[in-house]
Amino acid sequence: MSRNHARAWSARSFAATCITWIAAAVLVAGCASVPATDPLPSWNEGAAKSAIVKLVTDTTRGGSPDFVPPAERIAAFDNDGTLWTEHPMYVEVQFTVDRIKAMAASNPAWRTQPPFKAVIEGDRETMAKFTEADFFTLIAATHAGLTSAEFRKAAADWLAVAKNARFNRLHTELVYQPMLEVLAYFRANGYKTFIVSGGTQDFIRAFAEKTYGVPPEQVVGTSFDAKYAFDANVALTRAEPKLMLLDDGPGKAVGIDHYIGRVPIAAFGNSDGDIAMLQTTTNSPQSKARPRLGAFVWHTDAVREYAYDRDTHVGRLDQGLTLAPQLGWYLIDMKKDWKVIYPYELKP
Amino acid sequence: MSRNHARAWSARSFAATCITWIAAAVLVAGCASVPATDPLPSWNEGAAKSAIVKLVTDTTRGGSPDFVPPAERIAAFDNDGTLWTEHPMYVEVQFTVDRIKAMAASNPAWRTQPPFKAVIEGDRETMAKFTEADFFTLIAATHAGLTSAEFRKAAADWLAVAKNARFNRLHTELVYQPMLEVLAYFRANGYKTFIVSGGTQDFIRAFAEKTYGVPPEQVVGTSFDAKYAFDANVALTRAEPKLMLLDDGPGKAVGIDHYIGRVPIAAFGNSDGDIAMLQTTTNSPQSKARPRLGAFVWHTDAVREYAYDRDTHVGRLDQGLTLAPQLGWYLIDMKKDWKVIYPYELKP
Repeated sequence: MSRNHARAWSARSFAATCITWIAAAVLVAGCASVPATDPLPSWNEGAAKSAIVKLVTDTTRGGSPDFVPPAERIAAFDNDGTLWTEHPMYVEVQFTVDRIKAMAASNPAWRTQPPFKAVIEGDRETMAKFTEADFFTLIAATHAGLTSAEFRKAAADWLAVAKNARFNRLHTELVYQPMLEVLAYFRANGYKTFIVSGGTQDFIRAFAEKTYGVPPEQVVGTSFDAKYAFDANVALTRAEPKLMLLDDGPGKAVGIDHYIGRVPIAAFGNSDGDIAMLQTTTNSPQSKARPRLGAFVWHTDAVREYAYDRDTHVGRLDQGLTLAPQLGWYLIDMKKDWKVIYPYELKP
Repeated sequence: MSRNHARAWSARSFAATCITWIAAAVLVAGCASVPATDPLPSWNEGAAKSAIVKLVTDTTRGGSPDFVPPAERIAAFDNDGTLWTEHPMYVEVQFTVDRIKAMAASNPAWRTQPPFKAVIEGDRETMAKFTEADFFTLIAATHAGLTSAEFRKAAADWLAVAKNARFNRLHTELVYQPMLEVLAYFRANGYKTFIVSGGTQDFIRAFAEKTYGVPPEQVVGTSFDAKYAFDANVALTRAEPKLMLLDDGPGKAVGIDHYIGRVPIAAFGNSDGDIAMLQTTTNSPQSKARPRLGAFVWHTDAVREYAYDRDTHVGRLDQGLTLAPQLGWYLIDMKKDWKVIYPYELKP
């Protein structure tokens, strides 16, 4: 062995020893810090992430003073602006406009009848002045006379092709990766995840199971009266153009009461329409018996998504922004808290 | 060793060998016929039991042509007369009468106002002529102004002491042991069990979790409009005296559509008020894609429970009795199909 050879061997030996020690150290570290995987990898460290992880940990760890029995583990999520992008316009409103246009041929009376007339003519000026009642007249018309299966098929067919103009992506691609992680994290810890949305329950049921892993029976949304008939030996339940539950604002408290029948442990929203849901979650008479968490997704990122709060007509967060610090609700700052916005940004 | 001793020893040895062989045979038989336990031990063999076992087996065995993915496994159950005894009078009606009497002192106007007057005076003749609308006026009055938590507490307090006069038992003791086994059997096979009842959802939620293992979010019942308010820093949602969903008859089809959003695989009822639920289950456009089962509990046992069908005012099964053989719905003949009726009949 030459001196060079000896040196080389010694270096190799040293390297090999190092690798062995490093491997052992990694193993030990891995064993010591179970679980080693981050349940919310698309989140930056911060108050919101810490609060979510602490809540899930505290409510599920055996022997924890804040332990919550599995049957009570309910987490509620608004949809528009909380789970997917709602700007420049709510997705169901875009669907409704397209659907009214498609239905116009078989509804000739609509051509002279507001609010249908403006939609059919593409009169953006008039549409910009539509009231909430106008929108619900239009939305009701898209449901009326259809079974929920028929409506869901129409919605699913539209969602398969309609794109957000700015991102040139399907709406179901514009869901928030960090919130998908929150949904999965809660479920992995025995929580049932519910959607509680101002959108119609059948619009959300058209995609929620595939997109969010939320089954139809865990979707609470705006609903219409319906009429059951047994015609030609087939059972059919068809929507009537009359609201049963407007699941927005105070209606979200009613929806939770009726469909869930339990105060959620956690609720996530993004607008003033979610205040009643968060109040119900954190400030009901039953709330004190368990830890509770309320949070708003705060749209602060004009570059990667949109920046809006007090001054928008779509997903306004005004009173909620004032209430959040007073009530201990978390603001999820999209720009600071989220490493990525959409699933397609993830490296493969 | 004497001859007697030898004979005794030999007999013992033979017995021991036998026991060993029997034990081995039992073990082998046990291994060969997994599962060895009867999932419905309180049921006599018959068409109804066979149909239930076949449905559950066919829909859950991997590779079965009738396999149903877990997410679609939904079984729906009526409550009154299907899961517990409804004679001589629906339990919630008995509760309502007691509650109206208890509330009378603080509602002096009721003393002269029908239908309250007859209840307060115990005027059985007038009460016997009450219409369904009268009952819902009374039931609405017991809910109005209360949060669901307050109503459920009132119902639970009453259920803890009120007894069925004939059996001198709590109503929650008069649940059907064979149906408890059906609920548990479905759940053990990945089914979600829902109650779909004409009773109010909060009355059923007062006892369903403890009594049936059915959580509040799987109770669909008659509901009232409600008003949310944030008063003195507490979020409260109080019922209004106005029906939102009358979850009976055609309303059960609407309830399934709104709360479950999926056609059940199986539905169990006992009266004409369940026909729409069974039709929706077995004869919706979506029904054909999967096996489906509809069944009525048929009250045929005047000795152990009650015997009634076409001629009763409480839980009438008239049209349903005619439809069942035409539509392939099973009649669960209480007298023939059930070994015991109530859990307390089981030997300890």
